[in-house]
This record gives sequence, C-alpha cells and structure tokens, in this order.
Amino acid sequence: MSKTLLGALEAGGTKMVVATGYADGTVVECEEIPTGDPVKTMEAVADWFRDKGIAALGIGAFGPTAVNPASPRYGQILETPKTAWRYFDLLGSLKSELDVPCGYDTDVNSACLGEATHGCARGLDTAVYLTIGTGVGAGVMIDGELLHGMMHPEAGHILLQLDPRDTIGSESGCPYHPNCLEGLIAGPAIKRRWNNKQADELADDGEAMDLLAGYLAQALVIYTLCYSPQRIIIGGGVADHTPIVSLARKKVVALLNGYIVTPEISDIDTYIVENSLDGKQGILGCLELARRAQQRSVSGR
Amino acid sequence: MSKTLLGALEAGGTKMVVATGYADGTVVECEEIPTGDPVKTMEAVADWFRDKGIAALGIGAFGPTAVNPASPRYGQILETPKTAWRYFDLLGSLKSELDVPCGYDTDVNSACLGEATHGCARGLDTAVYLTIGTGVGAGVMIDGELLHGMMHPEAGHILLQLDPRDTIGSESGCPYHPNCLEGLIAGPAIKRRWNNKQADELADDGEAMDLLAGYLAQALVIYTLCYSPQRIIIGGGVADHTPIVSLARKKVVALLNGYIVTPEISDIDTYIVENSLDGKQGILGCLELARRAQQRSVSGR
Repeated sequence: MSKTLLGALEAGGTKMVVATGYADGTVVECEEIPTGDPVKTMEAVADWFRDKGIAALGIGAFGPTAVNPASPRYGQILETPKTAWRYFDLLGSLKSELDVPCGYDTDVNSACLGEATHGCARGLDTAVYLTIGTGVGAGVMIDGELLHGMMHPEAGHILLQLDPRDTIGSESGCPYHPNCLEGLIAGPAIKRRWNNKQADELADDGEAMDLLAGYLAQALVIYTLCYSPQRIIIGGGVADHTPIVSLARKKVVALLNGYIVTPEISDIDTYIVENSLDGKQGILGCLELARRAQQRSVSGR
Repeated sequence: MSKTLLGALEAGGTKMVVATGYADGTVVECEEIPTGDPVKTMEAVADWFRDKGIAALGIGAFGPTAVNPASPRYGQILETPKTAWRYFDLLGSLKSELDVPCGYDTDVNSACLGEATHGCARGLDTAVYLTIGTGVGAGVMIDGELLHGMMHPEAGHILLQLDPRDTIGSESGCPYHPNCLEGLIAGPAIKRRWNNKQADELADDGEAMDLLAGYLAQALVIYTLCYSPQRIIIGGGVADHTPIVSLARKKVVALLNGYIVTPEISDIDTYIVENSLDGKQGILGCLELARRAQQRSVSGR
C-alpha cells in the first residue's frame, strides 16, 4: 500500500503549526504561521496546504470550540477572549478551500491522541493528557475516542482546595475562578505570586515547587477518580521545566490514601508520566485525526 | 418480533434486587434477597433466576469491582470493606449457574444507563448519574457507553474545598479522605455533623442545606468541567429528601462564573435534574445491560 500524505494543523492563539506527514508519524514538512486576523490567517493556512496533495486534514484547535459533529456550531471557535475569533468557522474556512475530509478536535485532545497513537499512551484506551503552560488544558481519550459531550472537557479549570500557605489571595491567574487549577499553577499565576518570575526560574525553590505540586496532585487525584484513566501524561512549559510532576506523584498517593487499589496506581511512576514525543504530540495527533477522517470518508460513515 | 425475557440484578451491599422484564422497560417480577455470605447469597440469586427462562442477565454490582472485560479480575468484587466479598467472582458465580449472556457493570453505571434508556437522559449520549445516600457514587456514560478505563469512576470521592463554616473538622464520613464529597455530604457525614440526624430531618434547616448544597455544587462544577456531560441526574436518599439539588443549581452557575457558555448551561434547571423512574433506574439499566449482552452474543461480538 502506497503512503497517503496527510495534513495537520495545530491552530493556536499565537501561532498556527502546519505540517504534512504520514499515518505512521513521519512528519514531512512543518512550518509556523503567526496567528493574526482570522480570515487572513486561515487564508495563509489554506494556501500553505493547497498544492501539497494531502488526502485529508486533521485540525487541533484552541478552545473553547465546538467539536461535536452534531453541534450546529461544529468547527467554530466559541466564546473566546480573542474576540476576533469568536464564532469564526475555522473548520469551514479550510474545508471550503481544500475540499478534503477533515478531522476536527481541540488542541489538547489532539495531543492526547498523539500520545496514544505514537507516544507514552500507546496501547491504552483511556488516558488523560494535561498541559500546564500559560494556561492549563486537558485532553481526554475514553475507550479509544476523544471526549466531547456537551462541548469538550475544560478540566484545567476544576476547583481546588486553596493551600493555606498560598499568598496569591484573590489574585488568581484565571479571570473566572479564584481557585481553579489554571488560576493557581499556570504561568500567569506563577508570575503574580513570585514577583514576575517564570516557572523555570523557580525550579530550585523547594517551597514554590511544593506548593505547585500540591495543586497539581489535587487535580491528578480528581482526574484519577473521575476518568479512571490508565495513564496520565503531563506536558507544557511549567511541567517540562520544573520538578512538579515527580513531586506530585507522592502527593497523589498520599491523597488517594489507599482508596484505589489497582496495578496501575501501585506503580505510580508509570501511571503519572511526563510527555514523550518532544512536543510533537499535537501535530502527530492531528495526523491521526486526518487518518481517521480519511478512513471515515472511504468507508462512507 | 416476540418479546425476549431478560434478567436484572442490582447487587448491593445490603440487598440483592432481582427482576425479570423486557427491553422496553417493563418489569415482570421483582424481589429482594438480603445480602449475606457471598456463596449462599449468589446461590439464592441463581436459584431465583434458574427457571424464569431469561435470555440474558444484566448485573449492576456494588464497587469497587472489575468492569473492564479485558481485566483478569473481570466480574470480581475488588478491595471492599466487606471482606467476605473481597475478590469474590460475582459474575462467574452466576454465569456458571445460569449459562446465559451476561452484562456486568457498577450499580451507578447501570442506574445512569437506566436514566439514559428510559428516563431523563433519554436521547443523550453523555450524562452523569450521581447518587447521594449512605455513600456517594457516580455513573458515567460517554458517547453512549458506560465509562470504565482503569477500573470505573469513583467520582463520589473527589476532593473539595472545605467550607470555613463546616464543623466536621477531621471527622469526615469517609475513612480515606478528610474532604471528599462522600465524606462531606453522605449520610454518615450528616449524622456526625448534626447530632445523629438524618438528611430529611434537616430539610428545613437553611444553614445545613446551604452547606450541603455548596459541596454538591463544587462537585457538579468539577463533573461539568471534566466530563462535559449533556445532563447531570441526581438521586439517592439525601438528594431525594432535601432541597439540595435545587439549591445547588444557582451555586453551580455562580462557581462556573460564565466560563462555560452553552445552551445546556444557560438552562441550568434542565441541565442539573432530579432522577426520574421512581428508584427503578438501576433495575432498568440492568435490563438494558442484559439486552446489550444478548445482542453482542447474537452478533458474535
């Protein structure tokens, strides 16, 4: 069987990563296009793909966005602070230009799919991918399919118990929630709490790391109890440049306190893991979305 | 098409509810058998079903239990405080006696399925059923299938932010977690906090109801963000005999604080609902498990 060239788009708030590649995870070309005005940006994206000869396109978009094909807004960006993008038909703008089968999901769901297809969640059917950077987002795969439901998970905003040592007070990094995970451990929260510092500058600060790891552990316990995943994968700049993942593992075990007895939990180092794939999980997930879209189109489903 | 008689078993820690009925939700016979010694209890259950002529059996079991068919312990009760039942092969004990296709899941997943098939989650594909009684449990349906993963959800034990007004201190009703939902709002927590009273005796106590509804609302926000369900259904004695569900709705909207903008959330009274089916959602879910098991058996999957 000859290889089918596929397209992948990671549509982010600051940049669009466009790529071509194959279902086996080989990336042929990869480029970045800055995110600006929606119409012009998507024209540039469509132009990039136009003569590549891709058989299908997989899109992982920033949220909130309508990922359920049954939704009347399917493929649109929803109520985002980036007002120019609000209700912009991201999927439609590419479909009409490129005329290939398209798969569409959130950026974090795509990253979860990338880890499940080629990375450290390979062979599993239920997994969570958590990214901690300027924001916090979670992609969730249940029984091999990405979770949508009413909209899609927004598990970066779950509410946590405030640590009494925390000085952040009412200055959470989330404009909506004084005590959500994103508001307590993402980049903006770190800057507010520690004098404009970045996560990597605090990596050796034991107290700071302990505070962040405690919040992360609370969230990981909630994900474990809610999703019953077979593995949780953590990425993003804050996690990649600090020891919070390894610090959080012990705290997860302590918080669960023996309540969940499974082979997975008894091997916590392989249950809660750092991401693999060198930051390519998003693009590889988009290639897999493209592969699935092409397969659906061939089988007429 | 002639009607196929199906069997249903709600296997609880204090009683076994056995029933026969049809896929359309008609219950023909229904009886209770007290839960005692595992072997004798399951013999009595098997005896009850033996000459009924059922084509398949659906079982909703108390947890923790192995519901993933790929698990080597599939059908067994796991690490339960009821030590006699620990690692008892509940599914196997019936399969060997009755020789019919069996569906097997948790009691709360079955109740969720019952509401999805015949009750207030009909027509939806992603829903949460929460029961608040002597314990708290959540059944979760994602895209039409009940959630399993590593084990099954244990979302009654998610950790919450303690209310500063709460006098429960370190006396949570959960032996594992000082601040989990079950430890804060189930029957034992209510008794400890309010001088051995039951939930229904406190239904007119505004402060008590406000405290409980606040915890419930925190949990509902977390479920909304994690599962992105199309509806959340609430049952169980504590919910049925107090106004906490209606009190929690406003608090959910306040806690979400405009972050999730969907038609569902904007109609919170139909998003968070009381259970329907007069306590029969569990048995009706088991009948649906039986129907699915029979269908799989016929189609050879």
